[in-house]
Amino acid sequence: MSLMTAKQYVESLRKLKLNIYLLGEKVDNWVDNPIIRPSLNAVAMTYKIAHSPKTKALATTKSMLTGKTVNRYNSLFKSNGDMVAKLKMQRELGRRTACCFQRCVGLDGINAVFSTTYEIDEKHGTEYHQHFRKWLEHVQDKDLVIAGAMTDVKGERTIAPSQQADPDMYVHVVERRDDGIVIKGAKANITGTVNSHEMLIMPTLRMREEDKDYAVCCVLPTDAEGVIHIYGRQSCDTRKLEEGDIDVGNYSFGGQETLTILENVFVPWDRVFMCGEYDFSSMLVERFAAYHRQSYGGCKPGIGDVLVGAAAQIADYQGVRKASHIRDKLAEMVHLAETLHACGLASAYEGWQTKAGNYQANILLANVCKLNTTRFPYELCRLAEDIAGGLLVTCPSEKDLRSPEVGKLIDKYLKTDPKVPTEDRMRMLSLIHAMSFGTIAPSYRTESMHGAGSPQAQKIMIDREADIEAKQQCARCIAGIEEREDPLA
Amino acid sequence: MSLMTAKQYVESLRKLKLNIYLLGEKVDNWVDNPIIRPSLNAVAMTYKIAHSPKTKALATTKSMLTGKTVNRYNSLFKSNGDMVAKLKMQRELGRRTACCFQRCVGLDGINAVFSTTYEIDEKHGTEYHQHFRKWLEHVQDKDLVIAGAMTDVKGERTIAPSQQADPDMYVHVVERRDDGIVIKGAKANITGTVNSHEMLIMPTLRMREEDKDYAVCCVLPTDAEGVIHIYGRQSCDTRKLEEGDIDVGNYSFGGQETLTILENVFVPWDRVFMCGEYDFSSMLVERFAAYHRQSYGGCKPGIGDVLVGAAAQIADYQGVRKASHIRDKLAEMVHLAETLHACGLASAYEGWQTKAGNYQANILLANVCKLNTTRFPYELCRLAEDIAGGLLVTCPSEKDLRSPEVGKLIDKYLKTDPKVPTEDRMRMLSLIHAMSFGTIAPSYRTESMHGAGSPQAQKIMIDREADIEAKQQCARCIAGIEEREDPLA
Amino acid sequence: MSLMTAKQYVESLRKLKLNIYLLGEKVDNWVDNPIIRPSLNAVAMTYKIAHSPKTKALATTKSMLTGKTVNRYNSLFKSNGDMVAKLKMQRELGRRTACCFQRCVGLDGINAVFSTTYEIDEKHGTEYHQHFRKWLEHVQDKDLVIAGAMTDVKGERTIAPSQQADPDMYVHVVERRDDGIVIKGAKANITGTVNSHEMLIMPTLRMREEDKDYAVCCVLPTDAEGVIHIYGRQSCDTRKLEEGDIDVGNYSFGGQETLTILENVFVPWDRVFMCGEYDFSSMLVERFAAYHRQSYGGCKPGIGDVLVGAAAQIADYQGVRKASHIRDKLAEMVHLAETLHACGLASAYEGWQTKAGNYQANILLANVCKLNTTRFPYELCRLAEDIAGGLLVTCPSEKDLRSPEVGKLIDKYLKTDPKVPTEDRMRMLSLIHAMSFGTIAPSYRTESMHGAGSPQAQKIMIDREADIEAKQQCARCIAGIEEREDPLA
Amino acid sequence: MSLMTAKQYVESLRKLKLNIYLLGEKVDNWVDNPIIRPSLNAVAMTYKIAHSPKTKALATTKSMLTGKTVNRYNSLFKSNGDMVAKLKMQRELGRRTACCFQRCVGLDGINAVFSTTYEIDEKHGTEYHQHFRKWLEHVQDKDLVIAGAMTDVKGERTIAPSQQADPDMYVHVVERRDDGIVIKGAKANITGTVNSHEMLIMPTLRMREEDKDYAVCCVLPTDAEGVIHIYGRQSCDTRKLEEGDIDVGNYSFGGQETLTILENVFVPWDRVFMCGEYDFSSMLVERFAAYHRQSYGGCKPGIGDVLVGAAAQIADYQGVRKASHIRDKLAEMVHLAETLHACGLASAYEGWQTKAGNYQANILLANVCKLNTTRFPYELCRLAEDIAGGLLVTCPSEKDLRSPEVGKLIDKYLKTDPKVPTEDRMRMLSLIHAMSFGTIAPSYRTESMHGAGSPQAQKIMIDREADIEAKQQCARCIAGIEEREDPLA
Repeated sequence: MSLMTAKQYVESLRKLKLNIYLLGEKVDNWVDNPIIRPSLNAVAMTYKIAHSPKTKALATTKSMLTGKTVNRYNSLFKSNGDMVAKLKMQRELGRRTACCFQRCVGLDGINAVFSTTYEIDEKHGTEYHQHFRKWLEHVQDKDLVIAGAMTDVKGERTIAPSQQADPDMYVHVVERRDDGIVIKGAKANITGTVNSHEMLIMPTLRMREEDKDYAVCCVLPTDAEGVIHIYGRQSCDTRKLEEGDIDVGNYSFGGQETLTILENVFVPWDRVFMCGEYDFSSMLVERFAAYHRQSYGGCKPGIGDVLVGAAAQIADYQGVRKASHIRDKLAEMVHLAETLHACGLASAYEGWQTKAGNYQANILLANVCKLNTTRFPYELCRLAEDIAGGLLVTCPSEKDLRSPEVGKLIDKYLKTDPKVPTEDRMRMLSLIHAMSFGTIAPSYRTESMHGAGSPQAQKIMIDREADIEAKQQCARCIAGIEEREDPLA
Repeated sequence: MSLMTAKQYVESLRKLKLNIYLLGEKVDNWVDNPIIRPSLNAVAMTYKIAHSPKTKALATTKSMLTGKTVNRYNSLFKSNGDMVAKLKMQRELGRRTACCFQRCVGLDGINAVFSTTYEIDEKHGTEYHQHFRKWLEHVQDKDLVIAGAMTDVKGERTIAPSQQADPDMYVHVVERRDDGIVIKGAKANITGTVNSHEMLIMPTLRMREEDKDYAVCCVLPTDAEGVIHIYGRQSCDTRKLEEGDIDVGNYSFGGQETLTILENVFVPWDRVFMCGEYDFSSMLVERFAAYHRQSYGGCKPGIGDVLVGAAAQIADYQGVRKASHIRDKLAEMVHLAETLHACGLASAYEGWQTKAGNYQANILLANVCKLNTTRFPYELCRLAEDIAGGLLVTCPSEKDLRSPEVGKLIDKYLKTDPKVPTEDRMRMLSLIHAMSFGTIAPSYRTESMHGAGSPQAQKIMIDREADIEAKQQCARCIAGIEEREDPLA
Repeated sequence: MSLMTAKQYVESLRKLKLNIYLLGEKVDNWVDNPIIRPSLNAVAMTYKIAHSPKTKALATTKSMLTGKTVNRYNSLFKSNGDMVAKLKMQRELGRRTACCFQRCVGLDGINAVFSTTYEIDEKHGTEYHQHFRKWLEHVQDKDLVIAGAMTDVKGERTIAPSQQADPDMYVHVVERRDDGIVIKGAKANITGTVNSHEMLIMPTLRMREEDKDYAVCCVLPTDAEGVIHIYGRQSCDTRKLEEGDIDVGNYSFGGQETLTILENVFVPWDRVFMCGEYDFSSMLVERFAAYHRQSYGGCKPGIGDVLVGAAAQIADYQGVRKASHIRDKLAEMVHLAETLHACGLASAYEGWQTKAGNYQANILLANVCKLNTTRFPYELCRLAEDIAGGLLVTCPSEKDLRSPEVGKLIDKYLKTDPKVPTEDRMRMLSLIHAMSFGTIAPSYRTESMHGAGSPQAQKIMIDREADIEAKQQCARCIAGIEEREDPLA
Repeated sequence: MSLMTAKQYVESLRKLKLNIYLLGEKVDNWVDNPIIRPSLNAVAMTYKIAHSPKTKALATTKSMLTGKTVNRYNSLFKSNGDMVAKLKMQRELGRRTACCFQRCVGLDGINAVFSTTYEIDEKHGTEYHQHFRKWLEHVQDKDLVIAGAMTDVKGERTIAPSQQADPDMYVHVVERRDDGIVIKGAKANITGTVNSHEMLIMPTLRMREEDKDYAVCCVLPTDAEGVIHIYGRQSCDTRKLEEGDIDVGNYSFGGQETLTILENVFVPWDRVFMCGEYDFSSMLVERFAAYHRQSYGGCKPGIGDVLVGAAAQIADYQGVRKASHIRDKLAEMVHLAETLHACGLASAYEGWQTKAGNYQANILLANVCKLNTTRFPYELCRLAEDIAGGLLVTCPSEKDLRSPEVGKLIDKYLKTDPKVPTEDRMRMLSLIHAMSFGTIAPSYRTESMHGAGSPQAQKIMIDREADIEAKQQCARCIAGIEEREDPLA
């Protein structure tokens, strides 16, 4: 099968029988649900750019498995350059959607499972890797969307999976059958699930022997029996139900997360990629985390580009674009967004080849990238809010603008530059609002904070990867505590 | 008349005939409108605490005009201690409402107009000050709420009021009659208007002679003929229309701003406090700004207390309260909130008496207070978001929790500490969401940024008030460029 | 006796027989030693301003003990206003000396010991407080300088005083005699010792019963038998030995710290103010710490004034003073310095009366003041360094400027504004260098970091003083977990 | 000739007849001068690593001109990988010397002049490029050190070179002769001059036609007739003259800058690479600046490694290494240093090939790298100072430690961990002091601020390179002001 078009992708989703709850109701036609649809549109962009002449070199690549052209989102990283291309594709998508386009978790998960299964097999004599390759060929061939699902609900945070009062706080194997396994539990904060064909289940932390039932990695259809998706509320979500297209800020696109519950879901063995090999749980988690912490150096600078553009545009509209403090703040915003991108790129270029043959993100630099991401988008929002002015949160509604009674007054009184329609000013303010408070703020702010792990997780990895003892030795030599290096020796 | 109770206050509003538009519709019974009501509740708290035994010493004071007990919100600052009391009252209200309670603009405006009219009269031989005193006695006697209205819509930002293409971009006098004046224009970002009995109109910037029709200060009923209030949209505003009380985050309280249009509104002379004395426009603006920049050292630390408490509580619920990085982040949040309070207090304690006899905030320190306020609440939100975790923006709705199909699953899977009801966890997350993204985020974030003037305005005032030349002289003496001070001489 | 003049103060020091080591040599005439003298000059300023008509109201006060006029540095705080006056006096001295003037530790120590001894006596029936009052009357009468000495050398940081391998790592009582006690140990980082007449020894941390020999507070002459002062190295200290007055940056003034060793020093009982009452060690430490953390809101803003002035002056000299980014950076510097002052003032105004009658700094706000002090002076230095330009660290020496061979070339080529002598530019750069790298950088940077306790100590105190549980309750009420407050009830 | 050893390099310097002034005296044997020698040692390390088996792959490369192995410091960047290798070599040298090793200006200048001369010739029909290649072959063959000299003394900052009151404020051509040109002026803040064989003179800013005499680029021996080097003072420079090796902090290595005056220096035509082509001045400046702003992503992380190591080591010595706040601060230090490195790497990997064939740093990312460098090393110093404790600036001298009278007392009282010699603790504190206050602080702090241009220069370049209009278009499309992108189209 060749690459699907965006339309074909949308149609393919209609064939699924997802079990989705939204605002307390089961949603049957979720594809056309106005709250959900923008998130589906964002994913559809990943199909569109695979066909567009200008972007298809970025959005597709040759499969490492088959040599065929596949969507980059379903590919293995054949080189550091492939990780760089990922980041540039992400930035492009960020600029076009201003939100989370949801497929990166799958891509990063695929690569982490690929190399980890290779090493599990090598040690344990299992056959996960072959199964995984075969499954991935099918994904590439069908051009599917894969949701990565790692974060468990976790129960009591300081207690190991197997010691929890409720055994289901981490996804685990409840039955091993000849034809497969049955799993139970729930994954939280899962991105893009309802826009995906299949879900890649991964463990969420380092485990010990007693947790081995929790060391499970497998793949299952998003509409498998026993799967329930509960759609998370997002800021200003119901504005998508309103008439008009201004107040929602980003009318076409949005992110999406679910709490996805697995009620005794069956998975056949050829879709199982880890089952009890607890000693590889941390490898899988860390490799995935590194890839995904790197990914924030792609998407967030792209979304940041839109925010910088919006801030510059509203400054233009409001006639203050050339004020020195405005220019300074815009340059600062660019600076911060580019710093994130630079860290992502560095972790891509400085990656290394795994035993399985694909490339791994540089772990230290990927964590550095992500830790900056937990800080800079917030400052970008703050600066954009500074530039936008107070009307950002006091602006009348689109309905007021359309009102026969007060519409003209609004048009008159919110006019700044006579050449700029008041409506355009309101649109731009609404976009900035959406990015800093509204429908896409979770994509830009909270995901930057907690996606791929919270800041403390990055601090710990940086501490671990930094080889501080080697630095201490440098210091001891310079200080003359160990022998000083003689430059002439 | 004695001090009104909160109930009497609400009833008094019902007698007004406000012209309010909200989401494109004229609202008749705005007092009971679910979107508007929380903002009214926040104002009602200022009445409640004036009666409550524990707080009445804070919330009332003796009138400087009459010696009678009045609500502190309608008082003149008789001492530096009165400004300190203002800040402590604001902090208390912030802790109880977690939002903007709207009356500070009026209080600060009353004090600025009081002292400025005195000096206008002194120079110009006018009688504004006597009129103002009389009006204020009436306000104190009736225990009214006064909205301060300063910010004009401004049109092209770099062009003076009288030079604008549309002459109505700043409120101005369009007719001078024997019995009063007629004014036209619009005030933007105006806080608490629809919960107020009267509005105090003030000019928004320094003016020159050609702008003298724009140098106008007066007071008018909020339901005067020709006044139209357009209620600004706020993040997640329509959640207030939903069933349930969880998802809105702060069910009882909220802030409120309007775009208020003055279509040829008549004001009798005894309610006019400046009309053409353009040379006092900057004095009024700066004095008001100093008072109001100081005020942020009261309310925002109070709201910050709630956010610190919410972050600590969710950490408790999620079992991570004792982790060293959590404790460090909480202490940092406290530190930032207290720094704001300290700056506010310092500007109050270091104020000075005006010619008219009331006390003025220390201008330099008030600007320092506000400039910090444009930064720290954002960092407090960021830290709270860090502590809360990703569920902050992915949590199922209250309706899902109540759903017979999935409610129990949510209860099971979002349980952390077995002793803590899942619902409580959801409530606390929802509060943090409301403060950082939702209905009260504008009160805590944007108002901190732009209320009482944007950060650049504070930078300019700090530059002007700092007496840098005196500091340069210190430096020249130490450096030996001017004569060094001999410690033994 | 009346207040000493600065000259009398210097002469009074000559009568002491201090045992001082500096750069490996015993220094006999330390009063005229060019490395030490600037620090003595800084202390002399505290005498000078007590006589100068403009400052004596600030620098003197009525004794709470006797009603006589005394130097404020030897006074008890009779009111919050006295703490405010302390801060303003400190700021004035900072502006005049651009360094640490060393007497604040003594002043803050006097006040902490005064109130603590009162409470010790109250509980234990001892007579420390009367002894202390008597001693303080003598100090006030003789107008002496008292060095406060709290920080022990501490040995292994995680081990209690009495458990250390070497028992002398904290000052302790080695013998109790009829006429007094004998103490042993060493105090590190002690400020102003060699410019002081007496030293007030205080314990450095909370203690338990087994540490009771370490719970010792007493006073002794700086030249008592067994006392050895080892003068600490400071950055660029030997520039004070060079000819000329430019390169040292601050020719007249400087700070000073010693490692002071107590080799079995005898102290008569009437100079002992705690001896074994380990249960009061933490009260003394915390009260002192609060006073002294507050003090940084006085001196550091004063030193900061000089740095702001120097940065503005060099920008003037170099012709860039009006560039918008320079003005912005200067305003930022002012803002940071004033924030420190505001926090200090708030902690003074919000202090409380102790049982003994003097006033105590607000502990929470004093810690907030100090925590900001561990950050902002560094940013002030960074901004000054930005404004100054690279010549700050590449400038030729004064000797080069005076050289017949190259002096004229330097004069020609380092000229900026033709009206400004090159020498003046060099002087101003040298002052900025001294404040950020050189002789007075320890006063402005490191003392801001570690004086009165390191930042982590402030974080711990802020955590403890913040009453976070009360804030959690506010959050629970707003969230509806506890009963919501009804504004109309 | 093959690559020189470090010893041969030192001997080669002895043959030069430099005209150097230091502290007002002409220095004849500067090679062995104790103040200068550490800077020479740092350069010698660039020779040493070119021979050492572990590092020679990093420190040498094939010449793009001749194919022969040359020191990387004299090479052209044949690929992006060569710029990456530069950064890794710089980091390695930073770790070994903890200071500026001075050769990067030359390397970056060589590459900028190489590509610019190509384009000058292309437009103007000149022959600069051939001359430059020939000269560079000579440099590679003789294995020389080239100092880059760009920064002019500048006089009045807001006035163009040709309009200055004194025409010599920028280096300019005073005579054009048949055999060459005569130049006059002075270069300030020039790094490594006295350790170099030749100097590459470059213009310092964009020029207009009237400035064409100032548009001059050429090379000359550091001991050419008319060249005078005045050695800049550095913090604590004279500690290098003291006995002992502790107090200086970094005994072996240091940076170095001079004010270098060119008094009518003759340069033959084949050493002239620009002479009047003012239209290429900005190209040369920007290309050089981009290379050199990138370079800070190599050296400063390397120096930062030493500071991280020193902070970790002193924490170890003082027994607090495992405290959570210490670990957090160390991880933060690593994070900041790695962010700089990541930005440098990104600008290298994302470079582009010039018309002349060598590779150019990505200009936007290089500026981002440098702007971060003007901030993060200051925070690293602040954190190191926090970890080190107050003894950093109060420690007794090495002479005190060696003193028969007090040495043992110091040894006893400054002991922390009984297993760690007090001397080692003092050494480590002294190293941290040297990096944050002392001899190498200018290398780590001020050079990070002003080297390759001050922060405002980076802000301006970021503004210019960011293509903000393209970002505005993204924003307009998302906001629906321009046509929204249809994901299904």
